[in-house]
Amino acid sequence: MQSGLALMKELSITSPAKIVLLVIDGLGGLPQGEDGLTELETAQTPNMDALVSTGNCGLLQTVGPGITPGSAPGHLGLFGYDPLVYTIGRGVLEALGMDFELKPGDIAARGNFCTLDENGLISDRRAGRISTEDGKRLCQLLDGMEIDGVKVLVQAVKEHRLVAVFRGADLHEELGDADPQQTGVPPKNVLPLKPQAGRTALIVNQFLAQARQRLAEHHPANMILLRGFSKQPAFPTMTDIYKLRSAAIASYPMYRGLAKVVGMEVLPTGPTFTDELTTLEQNYQKYDFFFIHVKGADAAGEDGDFQRKVSVIESVDMALPILLAFKPEVLIITGDHSTPAAMSAHSWHPVPCLLHSAFCRPDRLGKFGESSCRLGSLGLMPATSLMPLALAHGLKLTKFGA
Amino acid sequence: MQSGLALMKELSITSPAKIVLLVIDGLGGLPQGEDGLTELETAQTPNMDALVSTGNCGLLQTVGPGITPGSAPGHLGLFGYDPLVYTIGRGVLEALGMDFELKPGDIAARGNFCTLDENGLISDRRAGRISTEDGKRLCQLLDGMEIDGVKVLVQAVKEHRLVAVFRGADLHEELGDADPQQTGVPPKNVLPLKPQAGRTALIVNQFLAQARQRLAEHHPANMILLRGFSKQPAFPTMTDIYKLRSAAIASYPMYRGLAKVVGMEVLPTGPTFTDELTTLEQNYQKYDFFFIHVKGADAAGEDGDFQRKVSVIESVDMALPILLAFKPEVLIITGDHSTPAAMSAHSWHPVPCLLHSAFCRPDRLGKFGESSCRLGSLGLMPATSLMPLALAHGLKLTKFGA
Repeated sequence: MQSGLALMKELSITSPAKIVLLVIDGLGGLPQGEDGLTELETAQTPNMDALVSTGNCGLLQTVGPGITPGSAPGHLGLFGYDPLVYTIGRGVLEALGMDFELKPGDIAARGNFCTLDENGLISDRRAGRISTEDGKRLCQLLDGMEIDGVKVLVQAVKEHRLVAVFRGADLHEELGDADPQQTGVPPKNVLPLKPQAGRTALIVNQFLAQARQRLAEHHPANMILLRGFSKQPAFPTMTDIYKLRSAAIASYPMYRGLAKVVGMEVLPTGPTFTDELTTLEQNYQKYDFFFIHVKGADAAGEDGDFQRKVSVIESVDMALPILLAFKPEVLIITGDHSTPAAMSAHSWHPVPCLLHSAFCRPDRLGKFGESSCRLGSLGLMPATSLMPLALAHGLKLTKFGA
Repeated sequence: MQSGLALMKELSITSPAKIVLLVIDGLGGLPQGEDGLTELETAQTPNMDALVSTGNCGLLQTVGPGITPGSAPGHLGLFGYDPLVYTIGRGVLEALGMDFELKPGDIAARGNFCTLDENGLISDRRAGRISTEDGKRLCQLLDGMEIDGVKVLVQAVKEHRLVAVFRGADLHEELGDADPQQTGVPPKNVLPLKPQAGRTALIVNQFLAQARQRLAEHHPANMILLRGFSKQPAFPTMTDIYKLRSAAIASYPMYRGLAKVVGMEVLPTGPTFTDELTTLEQNYQKYDFFFIHVKGADAAGEDGDFQRKVSVIESVDMALPILLAFKPEVLIITGDHSTPAAMSAHSWHPVPCLLHSAFCRPDRLGKFGESSCRLGSLGLMPATSLMPLALAHGLKLTKFGA
């Protein structure tokens, strides 16, 4: 266990306080217009601004300066897990992202349908981006094979993408990719990277050989490429470390999956923020910690849509009084990473963060935004420091030493 | 040796400059009234404020974000010792706190008188909180036993509390507690946690058996519970690391004890700050580094007495000109942790710190307080960074590299 988490495990105690972590995905941004204001600074956010005046602000850094985090490290950091220590394989992430119910010991891989030419060389790694419907139909051809007692589950994702899960006794994840990530070469034989993975590699290669036969007549999708073989990691849970009964309220599968990996209970909810707040209300007494996820800001940022990102943030602020009515002892509003509309992508810029409790030395800053957060008392802080602070403000940590 | 200390040992040199570290215990606070001002911000401190205008301010973090330090880690951090690396056992701390003169190899334990019922189960872990006088009398019954060449020294602390020290050759501290920290169960047999501690465990258990016999007729204090067996750690000294002749001026035993652990000379002094300043005057030429400890602010904070904490800080400020008259080349005013009156306890909030020397880039901030310190040039700084800065300002560090 990472030393910071071991210290939390030693010091954490239960208390009646509720902690709400509201993650507005991709919250951080960049100025685009003449006014030099980011998306968050442009948004009218009177409710968040009121919290800023009596709370503490800062900027969160997830992996390190200059490092752009993916969604998994972004969230793991917020939950207190050093993303350089606690990593999740690509196959598992893809499975989590589609609500696939992985069992312990399952090996998951990301896959693509691809096109092989008459010489067996890859001519298109994405099989002409076949339709999602075609993808589903072709996955049914491959789903459910059994090889040496190992069941292979194949599920379509979107367009040419799929997930393959190998389920059986004594499987090992130390496998090289079958996907060479280039064209003009044949698919690679899957190699065991450790001796104990030899049998698993054989099974995967047998599956791929059979897949090739079954897909032979389905040009352009006449083969699949697999990569990112991985098992669901056994992370210490948030209950184990923080002694929290924790719940996730998220409408996107990926975030529910990440929450499960750290031992949160995943609550069924609807697609909107107000649906999520209804779920919060229905479960408020049952848990100590709530992770609420809002996806829209990131999606708008990825689309390069500055104004839509502003609107998503404004709609969160407008609904905020519903959340504030519960009077959570500790409320955190932040993001898992920045997604500036100006870049249409995740970025390395640190993420604005607001922490509010009765035990804040008030920063007395104004508008919630990147500029005010830069002046806040949390400073430029590793994301993994957020949970210790949240616990402290919830009176959930005992003194260190006498 | 922690790498930062090893670097100090490599770079430190002697110089004529005097460093004075004035620790106002529990200095950091929280706002309580409408004005939003903390204890320090409320206090009239014209002398400290004058130092702020030409000095440097910042906030010190001792263990990490959210972590509330006890007095020992709080002070060790100020002296430059990472409190996660340099830990002191509970038994030793209790002994230090009563000026017990521990010898190398001694094993100290914290103890309670407790009540056993007719079945030998603990019915009260504190023996009805017997009076300090009764505690002293009963400790005399136990003090001075000799078992297998090991002398057992038992000294009363306050009410039901005591310290037991085992003195003899080849004793080991790797021992489990005898105190189960719950009622309805018998006292635990002390177990060796490492093989070499087997004989020590036997001796402790024999002592406890004899203690039980001697106390049998002294209900409710008919037994003792011991925990926190520990040896005084052999830390590198401040002379060794920093090449400082260092002295402690503190009226409370615990802080004198901590100073001894890092190799400071402990100077006899009186109970007030002005007594301490007289001691400083009498010894000013003999040392390079002075640690002066003021207890009152922490005690007032622990009592939840905002106004008394304000008064203690004001009285320190009022006497400060006596100290300033010596013109110490480096003067630091800070605390070992925060003790907000609003919480009546130590807290995790970072501690205001003021460093003054002729080599400061002046921060030109106003009133000494948490808000101004947040804007100061020292930033939010690990407490262990304070000593390197103090040495630098005293021209006591050579250049690193060529």
